[in-house]
Amino acid sequence: MQKLQTKDPSFRAAWERVCARGSDEDEAPVREAAQRIVEDVRARGDVALLEYTRRFDGWDPGTAAGVALGPDDFRAAFRGLPAEGRRALTLAAKRVTDFHARETDSEVKPRRDAAGATLAQVVRPLARVGLYVPGGTARYPSSVLMTAIPAKVAGVREIFVCSPGVKGTGEMDAWTLAACHVAGVGKLFRVGGAQAVAALAYGTGTIPAVDKICGPGNAYVAAAKRLVFGRVDIDMIAGPSEILVLADVAADAAEVASDLLAQAEHDVRAVSVLVTPSVRLADAALAEVERQLADLPRREIASRSIQERGAVVVAADLAEAVRLADEFAPEHLALHARNAARLVPKLSRAGAVFVGTSTPEAVGDYLAGPSHVLPTAGTARFASPLSVATFRRRMSVLEFTPAALAAVAPAVKALARAEGLEGHWRAVAVRVEKAAPVRRRKAARPARAARRPPPRRPLRGRPGRKGSR
Amino acid sequence: MQKLQTKDPSFRAAWERVCARGSDEDEAPVREAAQRIVEDVRARGDVALLEYTRRFDGWDPGTAAGVALGPDDFRAAFRGLPAEGRRALTLAAKRVTDFHARETDSEVKPRRDAAGATLAQVVRPLARVGLYVPGGTARYPSSVLMTAIPAKVAGVREIFVCSPGVKGTGEMDAWTLAACHVAGVGKLFRVGGAQAVAALAYGTGTIPAVDKICGPGNAYVAAAKRLVFGRVDIDMIAGPSEILVLADVAADAAEVASDLLAQAEHDVRAVSVLVTPSVRLADAALAEVERQLADLPRREIASRSIQERGAVVVAADLAEAVRLADEFAPEHLALHARNAARLVPKLSRAGAVFVGTSTPEAVGDYLAGPSHVLPTAGTARFASPLSVATFRRRMSVLEFTPAALAAVAPAVKALARAEGLEGHWRAVAVRVEKAAPVRRRKAARPARAARRPPPRRPLRGRPGRKGSR
Repeated sequence: MQKLQTKDPSFRAAWERVCARGSDEDEAPVREAAQRIVEDVRARGDVALLEYTRRFDGWDPGTAAGVALGPDDFRAAFRGLPAEGRRALTLAAKRVTDFHARETDSEVKPRRDAAGATLAQVVRPLARVGLYVPGGTARYPSSVLMTAIPAKVAGVREIFVCSPGVKGTGEMDAWTLAACHVAGVGKLFRVGGAQAVAALAYGTGTIPAVDKICGPGNAYVAAAKRLVFGRVDIDMIAGPSEILVLADVAADAAEVASDLLAQAEHDVRAVSVLVTPSVRLADAALAEVERQLADLPRREIASRSIQERGAVVVAADLAEAVRLADEFAPEHLALHARNAARLVPKLSRAGAVFVGTSTPEAVGDYLAGPSHVLPTAGTARFASPLSVATFRRRMSVLEFTPAALAAVAPAVKALARAEGLEGHWRAVAVRVEKAAPVRRRKAARPARAARRPPPRRPLRGRPGRKGSR
Repeated sequence: MQKLQTKDPSFRAAWERVCARGSDEDEAPVREAAQRIVEDVRARGDVALLEYTRRFDGWDPGTAAGVALGPDDFRAAFRGLPAEGRRALTLAAKRVTDFHARETDSEVKPRRDAAGATLAQVVRPLARVGLYVPGGTARYPSSVLMTAIPAKVAGVREIFVCSPGVKGTGEMDAWTLAACHVAGVGKLFRVGGAQAVAALAYGTGTIPAVDKICGPGNAYVAAAKRLVFGRVDIDMIAGPSEILVLADVAADAAEVASDLLAQAEHDVRAVSVLVTPSVRLADAALAEVERQLADLPRREIASRSIQERGAVVVAADLAEAVRLADEFAPEHLALHARNAARLVPKLSRAGAVFVGTSTPEAVGDYLAGPSHVLPTAGTARFASPLSVATFRRRMSVLEFTPAALAAVAPAVKALARAEGLEGHWRAVAVRVEKAAPVRRRKAARPARAARRPPPRRPLRGRPGRKGSR
């Protein structure tokens, strides 16, 4: 775990290497393999999907229908879990639902303005979404909850999950299925990788084409999501998980270290960074990391991640530490500081902020409430957590009265002519002419109407007029 | 303009060809050229940017600083416009500002739940955005207003516009500069194409790297935006403009035709579709299109667009027409029907809906209020109009009390162990142990703490407990 001090002349260069932890591009061999698979599934549908499942997952679904599981399977899996498992999933589902139900939307309520135009922006759920949940050798029931529940709250009617079965058998992990039960998923397809993304984007006989694909996956899934983006929407390109712990001198080194290691155990490419103005805390945390690593079950992964990607930064003061945290734009930002809440207004670039020492990032992973699907690799500069808004769209609605149209007509004329789009002005002129009864007949001949000056005079002093000054 | 009837057996196939009007992929030569340019600008910065400007735009800025224009230039251009031009831009800016100021955001206000967890989602403006505005042979002052004003309202501090100068001279159109004045743009760079997108994504000596790139452009701009997506955010990949007019028997054929032609005059690849249950209106609109084409200044473009891409669909009834419109998911949806507003609740897939015959799409292009940057090519299935939300991000904020953490600890333990992430549970255990004073010393040794059962007993009957059932 490298240790940097902001006062060192070489700090800036080293810090920029730490910040550039995520690649924003797929590696060429991965991209090319993903592209071949995507094109093949697009062209050959279920036939290709089954071939790839046999080849990569090592089991044969027989027919395409053999990959689909439904609510009965989900319920049976839920019932088969130990009581504490059922309780844990139910609590998590309740908390995630409650939080997302509180999300307001960015609707603009209809209002008629002075000119007589009624403008609004309405919000609608997407019709059909596909959620990718990693599987194979691991199980991530929490990924089901953290993607499907916001979609459900958003009002999406058709929610499909794709997740690869256990390698060699195709069996589906009971926790994942039980999570589908509590989240209200409609159908799960036991397929994974780029082939699952392609199937959701283009549709096959078995898997329906969706409007948006969300959820984390490996490098092939990420590459495939980037390839189908435009055909469908995607939530984001997920990189390795990461945390930045911002700690002051009062922080508990054991707690700080436990947060760094909870991140590091995910993946050798996970990134754990500590920024603190306290040399003492920095050293204590480093020692604690070593101590806690000793008997961590996933210590090989965690230790490699910490060694190759971890960093401890000693800043001049807390203000500088805050600036560095915001520049790093971490997926998870843990504030181990006195009165940690007072730091939040100074921060704007993090996926989720964990305030104070009683809020380990792990609670956010499982059940705090907000989705754990968060922007990684510095994309928190611009991207948001997955949420209800991820599964809704807005639609502008415009309604002008004849008087409102007449009031803005001169300005439309000026702008349309500036842009050389005479047809745009004529579309207005044909209506304005019609509204002035004496010119009714000519209104049907927009070409001429367009040549006449716009009917500005009759409008003088009307309410709509005011707006044009 | 092809005429389809839904009752024909061949309708479905023909309609699907109409719906598949947009390509969701860049053509290979365009993609490859864009990729070369993006990589070159990324590697060589301003030097490459100047080379491409000389090669593609045919003028020599001399030094890199020669491409930048600022507020003084914008003000001078505004003052140089005729009075009606200044009035039109001012009215448009006011209306667009007023509408976007009404947009609410999807913040979740902090609230402490029964367990003692305070959860929120705060909204923050992006720091720096780049707006692409087409230029060269055309001028689009409206594109400046429709992208920069929502960014301004969102609270973005640094707004940069890239727009190519006039070919051969590099001069910048006065309307575009005047629009920068009324929209409050900070700086305009006279560069265009894939090189402008690359410069905004990676930064050069002259052009700062931004967090998000928005705005329409040609095929190279679209390809470059797709390539840099991930490094920065983008608004959408814009395809050719399009309209679907939904008309009943009472519609005015001349008005319908004028809307179709206002779309068609944009681009030979623009798409104009009429769907109506009335054969009479369909035929009258076809005749009107021909009549109005006769003396349209851009009739060559409009006529090719109408002929190659236009369609008239005769539906069985209005309900079927509404379903077809929603399936098409048009950028612009014009409702030429009696009580048109009653149709809006049945629609969810359009960029913007123009309700009633006094609301020509052209008013939306210039000054109605909502941004004219809208999803094209069927992406209205999932994408939203550019708006204030486009320029803001959300950030989750979580704060647990020690009691809240203890209340959820058993569920975190169950889920962390199900996912095989023991370090996640230990990060919770180390804190829960600490909170139970009698076990204070052992709390510093999470490895052991983790092996003990979670402290469920002391919590029985506390408020936080309830949530875990």
